[in-house]
Amino acid sequence: MSSCTLSSDDTLLFRALQKLTCGTPGPLNRRAKPRPRSRVPPRPLESTVRTLPDARPALPSCAPSVQLCAQVGNPAMSAEKEVAELATSVAAAEAGAGEDAPSQPPKAEAASDLQPPKASEGSAAASPLRSLVITGFGGYDKVKLQSRPAAPPAPGPGQLTLRVRACGLNFADLMARQGVYDRLPPLPFTPGMEGAGVVIAVGEGVSDRKVGDRVMVLIRLGMWQEEVTVPSANTFLMPDAMTFEEAAALLVNYITAYMILFDLGNLRPGHSVLVHMAAGGVGMAAGQLCRTVENVTVFGTASAGKHEMLKENGVMYPIDYHTADYVDEVKKISPKGVDIVMDPLGGSDTAKGYNLLKPLGKVVTYGMSNLVTGPKRNLMALARTWWNQFSVTAMQLLQTNRAVCGFNLGNLEGEVELVRNVVVRLLALYNQGQIKPRIDSVWPFEKVVDAMKQMQEKKNVGKVLLVPGPEKEN
Amino acid sequence: MSSCTLSSDDTLLFRALQKLTCGTPGPLNRRAKPRPRSRVPPRPLESTVRTLPDARPALPSCAPSVQLCAQVGNPAMSAEKEVAELATSVAAAEAGAGEDAPSQPPKAEAASDLQPPKASEGSAAASPLRSLVITGFGGYDKVKLQSRPAAPPAPGPGQLTLRVRACGLNFADLMARQGVYDRLPPLPFTPGMEGAGVVIAVGEGVSDRKVGDRVMVLIRLGMWQEEVTVPSANTFLMPDAMTFEEAAALLVNYITAYMILFDLGNLRPGHSVLVHMAAGGVGMAAGQLCRTVENVTVFGTASAGKHEMLKENGVMYPIDYHTADYVDEVKKISPKGVDIVMDPLGGSDTAKGYNLLKPLGKVVTYGMSNLVTGPKRNLMALARTWWNQFSVTAMQLLQTNRAVCGFNLGNLEGEVELVRNVVVRLLALYNQGQIKPRIDSVWPFEKVVDAMKQMQEKKNVGKVLLVPGPEKEN
Repeated sequence: MSSCTLSSDDTLLFRALQKLTCGTPGPLNRRAKPRPRSRVPPRPLESTVRTLPDARPALPSCAPSVQLCAQVGNPAMSAEKEVAELATSVAAAEAGAGEDAPSQPPKAEAASDLQPPKASEGSAAASPLRSLVITGFGGYDKVKLQSRPAAPPAPGPGQLTLRVRACGLNFADLMARQGVYDRLPPLPFTPGMEGAGVVIAVGEGVSDRKVGDRVMVLIRLGMWQEEVTVPSANTFLMPDAMTFEEAAALLVNYITAYMILFDLGNLRPGHSVLVHMAAGGVGMAAGQLCRTVENVTVFGTASAGKHEMLKENGVMYPIDYHTADYVDEVKKISPKGVDIVMDPLGGSDTAKGYNLLKPLGKVVTYGMSNLVTGPKRNLMALARTWWNQFSVTAMQLLQTNRAVCGFNLGNLEGEVELVRNVVVRLLALYNQGQIKPRIDSVWPFEKVVDAMKQMQEKKNVGKVLLVPGPEKEN
Repeated sequence: MSSCTLSSDDTLLFRALQKLTCGTPGPLNRRAKPRPRSRVPPRPLESTVRTLPDARPALPSCAPSVQLCAQVGNPAMSAEKEVAELATSVAAAEAGAGEDAPSQPPKAEAASDLQPPKASEGSAAASPLRSLVITGFGGYDKVKLQSRPAAPPAPGPGQLTLRVRACGLNFADLMARQGVYDRLPPLPFTPGMEGAGVVIAVGEGVSDRKVGDRVMVLIRLGMWQEEVTVPSANTFLMPDAMTFEEAAALLVNYITAYMILFDLGNLRPGHSVLVHMAAGGVGMAAGQLCRTVENVTVFGTASAGKHEMLKENGVMYPIDYHTADYVDEVKKISPKGVDIVMDPLGGSDTAKGYNLLKPLGKVVTYGMSNLVTGPKRNLMALARTWWNQFSVTAMQLLQTNRAVCGFNLGNLEGEVELVRNVVVRLLALYNQGQIKPRIDSVWPFEKVVDAMKQMQEKKNVGKVLLVPGPEKEN
C-alpha cells in the first residue's frame, strides 16, 4: 500500500510528472476550462415538498470528492462556497478514520431500510441541510459532513431542485480526494457526480419536469448533499419500476460501459472482451451489456470470491489477478487475444492490454486506478504509473492493425445529445430487463469513510451508494 | 520533390530512423514473419485453357512492387525466384524512364478495348509468359518486364492457376519500389497484390472453383504476371455483371475503406468523415461507402479539377489542399470537427487529423504517403515524416475522449474469415448498385511506368490498372 506518502501539496509534483511524461501542454493535452460558478444562497425547505427524506442528522463524517461527469452548467453546485462559509462542521470523526477497519457493510437487500419513510416528508422543514464536503486533498480525514441552514428552493431558469435520495460513489472520487485527478475545483467543494431524488421545485422555462417527478442526475459534481439545484437538462426521468438506489447506480457506470463497448469498442457478435475490475460498477455494467450482443466472450478480473457472481453476470472466464497473470490466462483460452480491452488501470496495464489485442482490436483506457494504492497519495505509485504510461506511435498502430482509445465521461460536458441518446438506450434496456444495476452496499452520509474503504479495498460487488439517511438525529 | 536522394541501400537508414523513433522492436513493433516459399517450376500453357488472353508480348518496361495484402500462404508467389533465374530480361527501357513525361493515359472507357479477344484463347500456348519484376529499390528503372518459358499449369493442393486479365496498382507499390515499405521480400520479385482473371487449372482438393470461373484475387504479392498460381482461399468469384477491370479495382481499396470506416471508425448515421486523397482508389471507395449510411457528411481533399467528380461520388465538401488549409476549411463548416479522419498521409498530418476529432472521434492512419515525394527515395522526406510522426499517451487519449487506430491490409494475412466477411458484404453492395469501382486508366504491362506516374503525380481519379495486353508482340 502507501509506502511513500507526502503530506505537503504534491498535486504540484503530480502535475510536474504529468508534464514531464505527457509533453508540453497543447492540443494533445487539452483541458477543459473550469466553469464560472454562480452563488446560490442557502435556503429553508419549502412546505410544498412532496417526497423529502426525513434525514437531516447532525452526525459528522468524512467524504471524498470528484469532478467527473456530463453536461453543461451546474449552478446548483454554486452552494459549495456557501457551504464552506456557513457550514457547521458538526463533527470530524477524524480519529483513525483513515485506517480503521470499516464497519460491516450494509447489504444491498437492506437498502430499502435506509430509505426514509414518506410519512416524515416535510416534517423537518426547518432542519439544516447536510452536505459532504472535501476540505483538502489527502486521506479520509479530508471529507467532512457539514450543514447549512435550510432555505426555500430557488431554482433559476432551466433549473430544478430535488431532494436527494441516493448518490453514487465512483472510483474517481477516491482519486479526487487524494488530489490525483485532473480538473479539480478549488477547495472546499461538495463532490458527487450522480444521484437520484424527487423534484421539489422547478425554475422558469422547465416544462418537462414537475414537482414530484422522480429523476436521476448526471452532473460534474455536487450531488452529495440532501438538496441540490441542477440544470433540468442534466436530469432523466426514472422508470416507474426503478428504485432510487438503482437510479443512483445507473448513469456513470452504464454510460461509461456503453460508450466504451459500443461507441469506441464497436462491440459486435462473436467478439471477445477483457473487463478489468469486473465486479466493480463499470465492470458489472459491462458484463450485462455484453450479454445484449450475440455470442460475446467475456474475460473478467476479480478476486476469486467474486467469481461465482461474475459468472451470473455474463463473465464466462473470471480471472483471479491475485494468483494468476491475466495475460497468460486470456491466452490459454484465446491464443490470439481479444477484440476489446476495457482498461481502468493505466500504467503498464495499458500496454499489456494493447498486446492482448487481436487485429482490429481496441484497448479503451478510462481510468488510472493504479495511481491509488492506499488512503493517501502515493508518490511512488504516481511516478511508477506515469513512467509506465502507455505511449504509441502512428507507425506502431499501422503495423499492428490496432486502436487505442481514451474515455472520460467527465470530459463529455457539453455533449448533451451524445449522452442523452445513450441514456435513452440504457433505459430501454432496463425496461426490457436486460440490464439491472447491482447494488453492493448503501451507506448513510455519516459512513462515507466506510463506503470509500469498501471500494478502495475492492470489497464491493457492484455499486457502492451513499444516502442522506437513515442515521439522522443520532 | 526529391531534393536529397541516396543511391546506396538506404533501406538501412530508413529502418534506423524507424527504430530511433518507434523505439526498440518488441510487442509494439511486431512484424509478421516472412512466410516460407515453396518453388513452383515454370510451366507451359495447358491445352484446356478456356479464357486465355492472347497477350504474351515480349515488350519490356519497368514496374514497382508491393507487399500489402491479405490472407494466408501464397505458394503461387514462389515463382519469383524462378522468374529471376530463368527470366529473359527482354528489354530494359531504362533510358529516361524515371523522368520522362508519361504518355497520355488511356481513358477508362477504353479499357474494354484492351481486353484480348476470346477468339485468340489458347492460340499462343507456346509463347513465353510475361511478368513485371522489381530488380532493385529506386526509381522507375528498377522494374523490368521479363518473360519465362510457358509450362503446363501445375497448381498444388488447395491452389488454382489463372490467366490474369487485370491487376490493380496501389500507392503502396510506389513505396515498395522505393524501398520505403516494411516487410519487403528479397529481390527480385514480382509485385501485385490484387487482380482478376480466369481459372485455367485447379489443384487437388479445390471443390468450389472450376476451370473457366472468373475470379478476383487478394494476395501478398505476385499478381503482375500473365499467369499465376494462388491458394484458392485467396480468390473470390466475380459477379456476372462485374468486369475484370472492376474486379481488379475492388478488393484492396474497398476492403481498406470498409474496414477503416466500419470496423475501426464505427461509422454511424449523422457522422462526419474527412477523407484525404478523396479521388484516389481508397478515397473513391470511402465516398461511396459513406453514402450507404444515412446522413453522413463527407469532407474530401483533392485538386480543384477533381471536385465536381468528388461531389458525384459522395463528397459534400471537396477541399483543394493546394490552396487552402484543410483544417481551417473543415472547421469553417464544422467547428467541432469530425467523427472520423481517414489518414493515408502520416507525418504531421496524423496530428492534424487527431486535433480535428470530435469527442469519441477516431483517426485511422493507414499509410505514409508523405514518405513519397518523387520517383526515388527522399531521405529528407523520410526524416521529416518520421520526426513528425504522431505519438500519443494513454493520458492524452483519456483527457480528450479520442481514438487513434492503425490499418494495414498487408498485415491481415491469416485473417481469412475477417477479410472474407467484408468481401461478402462488398459484393452485396456491388450487386445492389451501391458501390462501383471507378477506373481511372488501364495500362498495358509495357506502360507500367506511365501508370505509376499517373498515381504518383496524383493525376488519377479512381483506380489505375495494369493489363497484360494489348500491346503484345510489338
